[in-house]
Amino acid sequence: MPRTARKIRSDMGWSTTDRITVRGLDLPNQILGHMSLGDMAWLEIKGGAPTPAESKVFNALLCALVEHGLTPHAIATRLIYLGAPESLQGAVAAGLCGLGTTFAGTAEGSAQLLQAALGTKAQPKAVADLAQTARDIVADHRARKASIPGVGHPIHKPVDPRTPRLFAIAKENGFAGRYVELIQLVQQEAERASGKVLPLNVTGAMGAILCELEVDWRLARGIAVIGRAVGLVGHIAEELRNPIAREIWERLDDEASEHARPA
Amino acid sequence: MPRTARKIRSDMGWSTTDRITVRGLDLPNQILGHMSLGDMAWLEIKGGAPTPAESKVFNALLCALVEHGLTPHAIATRLIYLGAPESLQGAVAAGLCGLGTTFAGTAEGSAQLLQAALGTKAQPKAVADLAQTARDIVADHRARKASIPGVGHPIHKPVDPRTPRLFAIAKENGFAGRYVELIQLVQQEAERASGKVLPLNVTGAMGAILCELEVDWRLARGIAVIGRAVGLVGHIAEELRNPIAREIWERLDDEASEHARPA
Amino acid sequence: MPRTARKIRSDMGWSTTDRITVRGLDLPNQILGHMSLGDMAWLEIKGGAPTPAESKVFNALLCALVEHGLTPHAIATRLIYLGAPESLQGAVAAGLCGLGTTFAGTAEGSAQLLQAALGTKAQPKAVADLAQTARDIVADHRARKASIPGVGHPIHKPVDPRTPRLFAIAKENGFAGRYVELIQLVQQEAERASGKVLPLNVTGAMGAILCELEVDWRLARGIAVIGRAVGLVGHIAEELRNPIAREIWERLDDEASEHARPA
Amino acid sequence: MPRTARKIRSDMGWSTTDRITVRGLDLPNQILGHMSLGDMAWLEIKGGAPTPAESKVFNALLCALVEHGLTPHAIATRLIYLGAPESLQGAVAAGLCGLGTTFAGTAEGSAQLLQAALGTKAQPKAVADLAQTARDIVADHRARKASIPGVGHPIHKPVDPRTPRLFAIAKENGFAGRYVELIQLVQQEAERASGKVLPLNVTGAMGAILCELEVDWRLARGIAVIGRAVGLVGHIAEELRNPIAREIWERLDDEASEHARPA
Repeated sequence: MPRTARKIRSDMGWSTTDRITVRGLDLPNQILGHMSLGDMAWLEIKGGAPTPAESKVFNALLCALVEHGLTPHAIATRLIYLGAPESLQGAVAAGLCGLGTTFAGTAEGSAQLLQAALGTKAQPKAVADLAQTARDIVADHRARKASIPGVGHPIHKPVDPRTPRLFAIAKENGFAGRYVELIQLVQQEAERASGKVLPLNVTGAMGAILCELEVDWRLARGIAVIGRAVGLVGHIAEELRNPIAREIWERLDDEASEHARPA
Repeated sequence: MPRTARKIRSDMGWSTTDRITVRGLDLPNQILGHMSLGDMAWLEIKGGAPTPAESKVFNALLCALVEHGLTPHAIATRLIYLGAPESLQGAVAAGLCGLGTTFAGTAEGSAQLLQAALGTKAQPKAVADLAQTARDIVADHRARKASIPGVGHPIHKPVDPRTPRLFAIAKENGFAGRYVELIQLVQQEAERASGKVLPLNVTGAMGAILCELEVDWRLARGIAVIGRAVGLVGHIAEELRNPIAREIWERLDDEASEHARPA
Repeated sequence: MPRTARKIRSDMGWSTTDRITVRGLDLPNQILGHMSLGDMAWLEIKGGAPTPAESKVFNALLCALVEHGLTPHAIATRLIYLGAPESLQGAVAAGLCGLGTTFAGTAEGSAQLLQAALGTKAQPKAVADLAQTARDIVADHRARKASIPGVGHPIHKPVDPRTPRLFAIAKENGFAGRYVELIQLVQQEAERASGKVLPLNVTGAMGAILCELEVDWRLARGIAVIGRAVGLVGHIAEELRNPIAREIWERLDDEASEHARPA
Repeated sequence: MPRTARKIRSDMGWSTTDRITVRGLDLPNQILGHMSLGDMAWLEIKGGAPTPAESKVFNALLCALVEHGLTPHAIATRLIYLGAPESLQGAVAAGLCGLGTTFAGTAEGSAQLLQAALGTKAQPKAVADLAQTARDIVADHRARKASIPGVGHPIHKPVDPRTPRLFAIAKENGFAGRYVELIQLVQQEAERASGKVLPLNVTGAMGAILCELEVDWRLARGIAVIGRAVGLVGHIAEELRNPIAREIWERLDDEASEHARPA
């Protein structure tokens, strides 16, 4: 059964002998030396250069998840680098594979929840009563015994210190609108309904602010991935200065098999 | 045989109930809203905030390899995203795995070559005659029939347009020293000795400027990895707007097995 | 807040100067030369050596997804290998990252569905009427507008040729029990309720037979991952004999940016 | 500059509505239930079904690196699985990324060394005196201060117990020829020249036997990758039964930042 080929097209970038164009801009002359990495991430994801306000807010989101100490991802990256130091790219890739539902994936969930409730800025849904919407969201999750993405944190209680700071930056720059309002109402209702301390965590704040910036919820996790790629290279830099991966491995292997070894 | 545990220590970051510290700075109050992503990459890799000159040069390097069109990595990321759209992190990781010796790894090679010849800024080697050093490097590579990392490009001839631009940015900001001088001498000698057009490519320029910034050559590939992580998220964003991965797959699969299918 | 360390233990394997033990067996003397790779996979996942009947069925499942032509994963692996031929492991890892919900992940879904309905063999649920259970499962998915994992295939209609073959192998070896019966009833009910041709696909058959073999549904995707790792090394072997990755890249890149290039 | 498309072809597999063909065999009827996973790996990499002797030797090689306890790769896989349990494929991919030059990559190196010295079986080089060749190889590595791939082991001294067993299996099945002989001579000469205990390790044995089986040295690492994919799924299976990843993470994070935390 013959199929008709559909034309493939990309507008990300292209090059000729003497020119390289990225999203319509001349890379050497309009990007290099003119744009910071965070602003180029905006160019790649959103198109065009960000306004100063957009840049300020977007860079804050990109920086929020770069580094969080010796996380599972950072340990994994260091162990993989021990095994294949000639493939730094593989060590970073290995660590990034862990940015899933347990840790960084929840920014995706909260952005999805908010875009489902309020639509996008381009295609908004009419919502008269945000507080009622928040109550509905919490009731629905409680009925399904599902946790609300972005709400709750095992350590940062009663407040995740990144959350108020990100909201303050968003507000100063004109990006604290209805998505931010709704996620805060959801958090308050979740605490009220459960009787537990449930802070709005950093990924909940990120999800809401990404909606304000009109980023598709399916890309929310990508913001975490970009940030953490920076952080994992940072951990490899420290591993070069102060190697710990071999000690981690040997110590854990010894302990894990202690029961089996001959005395 | 009992072993003595060596203490494990990291200074990248740590957190308590109400604080998060990254490389000695308070994340919410000293980083978020104050640092751009590129400057935070400097903090992670080098420690401290960059000077404005360092920031300008380092961000240019980080931006140089973000996007280069429908590269093998970008195609791979889109195909993997087609298979596992719930795992954006895996799609980016897959693409990053391709940043090896064929493409982005050569920044590593040229930085290594330059640090081997001139030492680091902290521990410089005494080199009286850079031109002689360049001749020795080229002769050594020619004797081993090895290509010189950072020299030559299949498309961008006679000049890779990123190279003079990166050197100009480095010079304007006080980072065009002996490493930049040597790699240029190496390129000129390589052209002279071979009789071929061998432009200094972007990774050669990056390797030299990273030496000027006192970045370990073993981290040079990490600069490419960070940049390309940004670019691969950009390609996923375009794949969401204009999907091409399924067409790529079906078309190639059809063509590849055409000889075997029943008529 | 000090925490109490919990002892870490693993029974997978350990080694001393002159011995290597894997799941209680002496690797050199009890495994090498005695076990095939598929049987060793059973040892790793289930413990102990499989019976001949278990071995026959388990190896068939492991072989089912090894190779399916120029899939998205295979193309991705070849493109990544082009970029980093020194890191074969990264090329295979890249391809594996695509074994998600679109393609191979559905074996997981059907095994989960069946274990939710019937329990495990160790802890079975009392189910009087399998046909009613099948109707309930289909009605529930239709109400949620969710597809039923393992049911339906875009190409292999009305029958996925792997499915009856796997069921025959399972039956010959005593592993065609209630899980196999239920998934077949679900498929029939799905066709009846929808009025569409919905074959039971290979992952549906795999999910059911893995339940018969008492494999946790959360490991069902791992069977696909093992098989596809074999297949991706096979594609690298062919890429070495007959390279196509560069042609794929250059052709797609040209086509994708044709609209933008100067005439 | 228009380019001429080169035809893309693959002979790995293809499918139609009712048939699936893998390397010329009918998958449902000639492979499933007839071939074990290890034999299918031979089919994928070499083409055709292995003889019983080839099967015995090849499966032993595939099994040799499946499991080695709580290795860096196994720890990494468990940590990544903790972060993204919905993406088992990403956890396995992460672990595989570590199969580089430190650990499993040396099978590649020894196979390369042997094929460089003796050619392939299809295109052998005339070598009159294997002992002289061994002396040359050792002298060359010593002059370059390079370690000889496959020679030496940190723990398994004076003998890696897998090595004599693999050679015995190879010999019993008619695959102990000149490659096996040469690697043994190299090991003896390396010990003699260095005055140190340098056992031939498992990857040295694997590299030599893969040459006997006429496998391209560039695929030697793939044998390790296939085996370890099996082992990493085994570790995820144990992690489900007895989770240790969270304890590993929390314990290491606490210790690493102890110096920085407020008392």
